[in-house]
Amino acid sequence: MDPRIRDHANVLVDHSTKIQPGDEVLVSGSPDSEELVVAVAERLGEIGAVASISLGSERAQSAYLQAIDADDIVMSEAQKARMEHLDALISIRGGENMYESSDVPPEKNAARAQAMQPVREVVMDKRWVGTQFPSTGYAQKAEMSSEAYEEFVFDAVLKDWDAVRDHQQQLVDILEDADEVHIRSGETTDIRLSIAGNVVKNDHGEHNLPGGEVFTAPVPDSVEGEVLFDKPVMVQGREVNGARLVFEGGEVVEHSAEKNEDVLTSLLETDAGAKRLGELGIGMNRDIDRFTYNMLFDEKMGDTVHMAIGMAYEDTVGEGNERNDSAVHTDMIVDMSEDSHIAVDGEVIQRDGTFRFEDGFEA
Amino acid sequence: MDPRIRDHANVLVDHSTKIQPGDEVLVSGSPDSEELVVAVAERLGEIGAVASISLGSERAQSAYLQAIDADDIVMSEAQKARMEHLDALISIRGGENMYESSDVPPEKNAARAQAMQPVREVVMDKRWVGTQFPSTGYAQKAEMSSEAYEEFVFDAVLKDWDAVRDHQQQLVDILEDADEVHIRSGETTDIRLSIAGNVVKNDHGEHNLPGGEVFTAPVPDSVEGEVLFDKPVMVQGREVNGARLVFEGGEVVEHSAEKNEDVLTSLLETDAGAKRLGELGIGMNRDIDRFTYNMLFDEKMGDTVHMAIGMAYEDTVGEGNERNDSAVHTDMIVDMSEDSHIAVDGEVIQRDGTFRFEDGFEA
Repeated sequence: MDPRIRDHANVLVDHSTKIQPGDEVLVSGSPDSEELVVAVAERLGEIGAVASISLGSERAQSAYLQAIDADDIVMSEAQKARMEHLDALISIRGGENMYESSDVPPEKNAARAQAMQPVREVVMDKRWVGTQFPSTGYAQKAEMSSEAYEEFVFDAVLKDWDAVRDHQQQLVDILEDADEVHIRSGETTDIRLSIAGNVVKNDHGEHNLPGGEVFTAPVPDSVEGEVLFDKPVMVQGREVNGARLVFEGGEVVEHSAEKNEDVLTSLLETDAGAKRLGELGIGMNRDIDRFTYNMLFDEKMGDTVHMAIGMAYEDTVGEGNERNDSAVHTDMIVDMSEDSHIAVDGEVIQRDGTFRFEDGFEA
Repeated sequence: MDPRIRDHANVLVDHSTKIQPGDEVLVSGSPDSEELVVAVAERLGEIGAVASISLGSERAQSAYLQAIDADDIVMSEAQKARMEHLDALISIRGGENMYESSDVPPEKNAARAQAMQPVREVVMDKRWVGTQFPSTGYAQKAEMSSEAYEEFVFDAVLKDWDAVRDHQQQLVDILEDADEVHIRSGETTDIRLSIAGNVVKNDHGEHNLPGGEVFTAPVPDSVEGEVLFDKPVMVQGREVNGARLVFEGGEVVEHSAEKNEDVLTSLLETDAGAKRLGELGIGMNRDIDRFTYNMLFDEKMGDTVHMAIGMAYEDTVGEGNERNDSAVHTDMIVDMSEDSHIAVDGEVIQRDGTFRFEDGFEA
């Protein structure tokens, strides 16, 4: 086994989820990520945790959803009961074909997301991490060789996460106690939102591996303006390009996309919360040096911000503040590398991708 | 997809487990059996069942068990809770390497079997079926090409199961209300046991696919004599050859094996019930025409009987009769094709593999 796979497993078990003896842990992965699942299982055995192992099948899931009537899609009580007994989940994404789910009608994906929301809520209260195996499907989508993509993934994952935390803390310090965030990029994005009272999180590889962002929840009603997500996003196995949203009073009142607009429409129509923002994130991981059509990595890049339609993470919402609830949480990215700024309470804190605590910043 | 895979899926869903709309069903399989998992998931969707899909990883399971201290092996509450909420389980066996678990020390496998017994007991009360995908690992062990092994599996699985039931009923009629069964084969097997009051089951592809046997439970204390299992058996990823057991008062008092005797010893020492018989089965599926080192098929062959060490299935034990309980249930086969007979209450009902209701029988 590639020793980097064992290192990856150790970060997941020891750093991200801090597994202790006796913890009930579910390890899930794609079939082609089995080597990483093996390495995680081995580490869990060394610690004396109780491991359940499950490889998913996107093909089977997709065949099931294609065959079933949308009205018959309901929550699995068995899955919910299982999640309730877990202490931690380690989810490994991968696959030989990123489009395996692309034949499922968007409204069925939406129905399933809604049906399974109680299961996700149970999971959110556990220790959990999502990570990536360097699968061929993802390498191909990134237009990289398997070797190069492996390097890319392991470089992003096997880092000194304490140093990452310290670097990112500089941005957390700026955003804590802030109110208005103003994001402008070119002619196409000009959006203002309040983060007053919400909690700013420093992502140093706990829930996401790789980590490398600072994020919080917008106050739901405060979002005003328009945004063009100029990087593509994969939604339910489909690629949505050039998504544009216009917000008034926190709600999407206008939307369009250059490609797969129907998928975007279906996403926004999942439920009331799917028309509101649940997250504002600012990418800070400069070791992720290229877009790879994979949100887990893309959203962490420097020179980007991202906003998620849908559910706000509970731990980002301050006491007494409203939490946006939804069955979906879909991140979309704005490129901030040129003709852009982030201003906090009227003060520019990032221009053209460079933060005010970094070399080369021009106020 | 090979249309025989869809047919196989339909037998599993419609005949073996009789899935109804709204049933909670777990479909589990080996990673290389994904096509059959896909076909089952599709059929479950058509019916409107609630499907959970999970591919296993023998490699990960094995790595976990190798790494953990035997004392730390405990039941997974999460798995038990999941099983309790299910209506049916469809388990698909397969794999590219049948020896994937062969590095796990036998005592750890035994510890795990014991720890997970409450989970198995929950499963036993559900509708469940175990079947086989024509995997390369099993083809290789059977010394068959992949093509030939596919034919072998599909021939055994895609049958008129109602006709099988009717044929087998002739043996059920003989064994019902019988007391003593005497099995003799060559110089090496001479064993007597009582089945008085127990229930004789007609396996026509419900719990096992392929089916094709008639089986019941021996009265635990009644087993007397010796038996040589002259066909090899895979136990915990290892091949036990030439296993010989001597019974007194229902208990194994002597045992040996030509190969991997330590695995047999560990099996017998799992718990008190592992030293007693839990099943007597008589193979009747003459379409399974060769040994393939796979108990699911081998035990169904004509010209064989099998006995299982360990747990007796609840539905084979008559009211008021003792049920042998154990964390294990391991079938072992006696070749009955030559110099052999089965006698029931003193009357020979099979000689050299031929039943008294078949052509060529010589009393």
